[in-house]
Amino acid sequence: MVDILHKVGVRSSSVDDVYDALTTVEGLSGWWTTDTSGDAALGGVIQFRFPPGGFDMSVLETVPCKRVQWKVVDGPEEWIGTTVTFDLRQDGDDAIVLFRHVGWKEPVEFMHHCSTKWAVYLLSLKSLVETGTGAPSPDDVKVDTWD
Amino acid sequence: MVDILHKVGVRSSSVDDVYDALTTVEGLSGWWTTDTSGDAALGGVIQFRFPPGGFDMSVLETVPCKRVQWKVVDGPEEWIGTTVTFDLRQDGDDAIVLFRHVGWKEPVEFMHHCSTKWAVYLLSLKSLVETGTGAPSPDDVKVDTWD
Repeated sequence: MVDILHKVGVRSSSVDDVYDALTTVEGLSGWWTTDTSGDAALGGVIQFRFPPGGFDMSVLETVPCKRVQWKVVDGPEEWIGTTVTFDLRQDGDDAIVLFRHVGWKEPVEFMHHCSTKWAVYLLSLKSLVETGTGAPSPDDVKVDTWD
Repeated sequence: MVDILHKVGVRSSSVDDVYDALTTVEGLSGWWTTDTSGDAALGGVIQFRFPPGGFDMSVLETVPCKRVQWKVVDGPEEWIGTTVTFDLRQDGDDAIVLFRHVGWKEPVEFMHHCSTKWAVYLLSLKSLVETGTGAPSPDDVKVDTWD
């Protein structure tokens, strides 16, 4: 079992604002991909689309200002059944985000790519909450020939 | 066992140039930390220093244009004994870097931080080779209150 782990600290920000950016289509469109649709509330399914493809996520858990968890229900084969979790906490003036994408069967090259891309998108989330402007797809930072 | 995995593609670049950036003090100073010293050749020990601390790496393996592997011999307790591997390959006009930092005992919060920071530094390596300018410490992208 291999997992993708990341951490970002959102400076001078409230976990409320991070939580909103994770649980509304408007928020998600501001940092992950502008082509986001669906229902980001508990029990809903969110469609995230990118130039090379996309993911459908079922919202498994939403604990206000503490945790958001999704399960991948459609997308690339390697992603289906994996879970994506954001754990939030306030640390003084900063909002801390601990990220986990778990359930990968094998450490394939695509997983290496996704790990680097998750870092890029989490820094986009940090920027969105700190400054009001993220860098969602299709204007995201490109890391390789896959995107 | 949990690993940190990443991938970057260095556009319109040769693996020779990436290999140089991984096996010379000048190259390493250009993307990871400006405070790099020591011997980056096989069997040498490299000292990497950052404002919060640093790492000493023993150079375990250098296969020209294919692989560089280091073992952490001094630094934070969680890092000691872990290995850092860069696997390189040419893919048409691009140089592909597959990165692994393995041997972590537990997925502690510091590991989440280091995973995100490695992505930042690998994008700095990509930038250095593509443009001649990286973003090494202390002018690196900060991801949280730890740096």
